[in-house]
Amino acid sequence: MREVFQQSLREVQDRLVQIAELVESSIQSATSAFGSSDVALAEQVIDGGEEIEALASALDELTIDILARQQPVASDLRLMVGALRMSASLERMGDLAQHIAQLARYRYPESAIPEGLKKTFARMGRLDVQMAEKLVTLLRTMDPSTISEIRNLDDDLDELHAKVFEKVLGDRLADNPTAVVDATLASRYHERFGDHAVNIAKYVQFFLSGQLD
Amino acid sequence: MREVFQQSLREVQDRLVQIAELVESSIQSATSAFGSSDVALAEQVIDGGEEIEALASALDELTIDILARQQPVASDLRLMVGALRMSASLERMGDLAQHIAQLARYRYPESAIPEGLKKTFARMGRLDVQMAEKLVTLLRTMDPSTISEIRNLDDDLDELHAKVFEKVLGDRLADNPTAVVDATLASRYHERFGDHAVNIAKYVQFFLSGQLD
Repeated sequence: MREVFQQSLREVQDRLVQIAELVESSIQSATSAFGSSDVALAEQVIDGGEEIEALASALDELTIDILARQQPVASDLRLMVGALRMSASLERMGDLAQHIAQLARYRYPESAIPEGLKKTFARMGRLDVQMAEKLVTLLRTMDPSTISEIRNLDDDLDELHAKVFEKVLGDRLADNPTAVVDATLASRYHERFGDHAVNIAKYVQFFLSGQLD
Repeated sequence: MREVFQQSLREVQDRLVQIAELVESSIQSATSAFGSSDVALAEQVIDGGEEIEALASALDELTIDILARQQPVASDLRLMVGALRMSASLERMGDLAQHIAQLARYRYPESAIPEGLKKTFARMGRLDVQMAEKLVTLLRTMDPSTISEIRNLDDDLDELHAKVFEKVLGDRLADNPTAVVDATLASRYHERFGDHAVNIAKYVQFFLSGQLD
């Protein structure tokens, strides 16, 4: 019975890696579409959201199926509940990549990025992509050193988020409320993306150490 | 065994009602603090977040405990997974009420609400409070008519959210980027609060009808 559960656990892990890979490619394309006002690429990200959603739902069903068939013990149940939470966070990260792509599409053929913030948003995007990459590695290898790397990237992201507000609240954008709205929302989406990556990393840490910090 | 599970289910329901009541009082106070720049009330909302978080964690543990002890069948498992998702949404609604209170605190003694949007935000706040009230009723009575009421309130909320952007993107706020940022974030927080209420209503519908729509 124990061996069957271990096998099920590996199946859950593989599915999480698969969804995380799609999220990684989604945030990569969303960042690129946002940076270059590429509306075709933005549409692609928006259309791709359904696949992530479908895979997350299928993983939830698998988890319920495992719980029903294998009557796991309490510690295994915590793992399954963790898997449900991780799949919810990955789905939400996919939504946020879509929101970033939508901003690019709404403003097309204009750029959604206010002047003076192009570099900052390029860096935020790169940080989100790196976090998604690290997340794929973490879910695949369960290497705990990746957890602190994800946390460090999130700290950098939070700094940039604060910087966006500084710039936006300076008077340089005062004549362009659209730019202020876009920058506010885009920065918030990037920041939330990072928060979800950290949440997932915390669940892996819980899995590895037996406790959430 | 079945009777024990029914009893556990009622315990889960009672706990969800309890958390929803705290969320209701939290969004009520946050809206009031935001509208009247009441920093003491804002602090109260921010401090109250911990209680909601602790109750949501305790409910997750209870759910895991029920799963471990009672080996429920697949349909019961779906209910338990639904309870986990509902508690996560309620916790998130508490976070959003805190975010709204934080905006009021940051701008104190100024108002976080831009001129010309006071009425709109008062209405958004009222809609969120009404949604939270309906949610408490729904979780307590499981009366399906409440579900469509929650969806209708969310439609009204989405209209106001669009209206905020219209006003913000008009040139009236052009000389005040802080007002644009605050209005953008506050409107987004209110909108997400409503989304989570609708998500919970959908889970109750699933519970009542056996399928998510």
